[in-house]
Amino acid sequence: MTTSLVPESQLLDLATRALVAGGMRRDDAATAARVLVLADMFGVSTHGVSRIPQYLERVRIGGIDPRAEVTVDHVAPGLARVNGRNGIGPLVGMRALAAAREGAAAVGICAAFVRGSNHFGAIMPYAFLAAQDGFASIIASNATTTIAPWGGRDTRVGNNPLGIGVPHPSGDPIILDIAMSVVARAKIRRLLQKGESMPLGWAAGPDGKPTTDPRAGLAGFLLPIGGHKGYGLAVMVDLLAGLLSGAAYLTHVQAWDKNPGAAQDLGHVFILIDTGKLGASSWLAERMDDFRRILASTPPADPAAPVMVPGERELNAYARAQREGVPVATADLRALESIVERAGNAAPA
Amino acid sequence: MTTSLVPESQLLDLATRALVAGGMRRDDAATAARVLVLADMFGVSTHGVSRIPQYLERVRIGGIDPRAEVTVDHVAPGLARVNGRNGIGPLVGMRALAAAREGAAAVGICAAFVRGSNHFGAIMPYAFLAAQDGFASIIASNATTTIAPWGGRDTRVGNNPLGIGVPHPSGDPIILDIAMSVVARAKIRRLLQKGESMPLGWAAGPDGKPTTDPRAGLAGFLLPIGGHKGYGLAVMVDLLAGLLSGAAYLTHVQAWDKNPGAAQDLGHVFILIDTGKLGASSWLAERMDDFRRILASTPPADPAAPVMVPGERELNAYARAQREGVPVATADLRALESIVERAGNAAPA
Repeated sequence: MTTSLVPESQLLDLATRALVAGGMRRDDAATAARVLVLADMFGVSTHGVSRIPQYLERVRIGGIDPRAEVTVDHVAPGLARVNGRNGIGPLVGMRALAAAREGAAAVGICAAFVRGSNHFGAIMPYAFLAAQDGFASIIASNATTTIAPWGGRDTRVGNNPLGIGVPHPSGDPIILDIAMSVVARAKIRRLLQKGESMPLGWAAGPDGKPTTDPRAGLAGFLLPIGGHKGYGLAVMVDLLAGLLSGAAYLTHVQAWDKNPGAAQDLGHVFILIDTGKLGASSWLAERMDDFRRILASTPPADPAAPVMVPGERELNAYARAQREGVPVATADLRALESIVERAGNAAPA
Repeated sequence: MTTSLVPESQLLDLATRALVAGGMRRDDAATAARVLVLADMFGVSTHGVSRIPQYLERVRIGGIDPRAEVTVDHVAPGLARVNGRNGIGPLVGMRALAAAREGAAAVGICAAFVRGSNHFGAIMPYAFLAAQDGFASIIASNATTTIAPWGGRDTRVGNNPLGIGVPHPSGDPIILDIAMSVVARAKIRRLLQKGESMPLGWAAGPDGKPTTDPRAGLAGFLLPIGGHKGYGLAVMVDLLAGLLSGAAYLTHVQAWDKNPGAAQDLGHVFILIDTGKLGASSWLAERMDDFRRILASTPPADPAAPVMVPGERELNAYARAQREGVPVATADLRALESIVERAGNAAPA
């Protein structure tokens, strides 16, 4: 698999044109493309522009409305209800981010509860954009069910992602973006290909019992971090992002892969906090520097692997992508170019 | 170890009088006692009235101020900064809960950032009280450092608790209250006593390497759930609860056990959301019932152990304690009675 290095602006332009070719308005497409390109810059290519063909295939069969007009209802100064109206996920996410930012700028904190959405990409891009404007964030989404309730043997809760970000007024923010399973399915698939066994605790077989057999694990389900703790976190994320948002939750969420033509009605929650109201930026900058220093100076167990702070790897990748271009699988680039060409929409933006 | 069953009101009265004997004002003492008694009712006796002698020993040597006047500064309609002024933790926590509730009732959501606090008990009591009034909550605290940053071999982050609660207008709320380690130290101590080995992943030895030897684990440090994920959650909790609050964070937090005479300057964060502004209570009740039903009806891996929702065990214990009395270790009761008697403060409230 070859990888190309593409300048950020060029990748943004290509992603935007591909989304326009898929039926989005140009402004909406540019907004959504920003989220996906940021994920590629962070090195999270599974949630980058490679998702566009999948999104547009669902558009093609009527599963997503590329021209959805997302609505925002400010039900209280600190609360917004957002209806994605089955639009492209990253567009819905960016509208919710803007709504939460507006409320937080006004009253210090705001939560945007989102329904009628789809896969909105990675959380880190949203938390990063919030941090750039001085906002701390708690962002989460529900997802198709892939995890069994703790002690159960049927997948009834999603591997729901949760992100938390805190800004640094003059340096890198600290951002965590995690899902609730110990590992991703891809990691188990790789063990199966290599004929290796799996550490206990990664997955359970169809009988609900932990297994070291990758094949049984793939037939069963992923196990959550910390057992009942990760299960509990996945449940609470669904309650906030799905149930309170008025979106689908648990088994009501449609699986985009099994039922791509149906609206998923995913739910998200975006909580933004205006840190500028808590103290001066010099105060925050000094504390963030000190905080990072304390963690980074921890003696490492392996001298070759210094201790990192959450998001450090991704923000280093971001800086490198700005300098050298964004790494994208050449096949993914070709797929986008072919979408643009097929639509006869190859004119420059 | 014998256990007594004490009526709720009687335990509240005894705990209040013990705290008054330790120097608290009666109203403040009753407020703090409420948090501790609720923990006992939930079956979390490690965070119940058994903590009072420990709190008061720190008061005695000047480590905690039992007459601290907690201050609340509403810096924005949705943001409060609370200064516990080194008061008894559960009193500070209750003041912060009230501040967050006031803001959330006004603008839909409010975050109270708390500094100058001490051990504030379990999170579940606060989340439960919030839920009783229709508020969803995200509550967290930092703590003395007991966890090493992922890949490090020195404890620089606390086993920081995080709680999330969602109310049910006509039934039990769903509440998660977790710390970030796979297990508590007590569980490792029990294995050592029994001469058994420890599952890999519970703790690392002093060299930072995972170990199955309970003795090495106790000399080293607890491992976080999901490795870098739990480490990341502990870090983000400290950023929100400690750094943004203006409290101590990471290694700046004083250990109450090693340095009981020093102010800990713990930090907490209380985020409350007024669910009444998101939809009618009938809407919420119906969704909560459905949500719980989906999880509870999951086929269990072990037919004798049905699937539960977060907080279910504790809320069942609460209902039992209301009916039958609150289970408290008889030795803990005697300790409280002796505090009251020694202070000559045994008159009924």
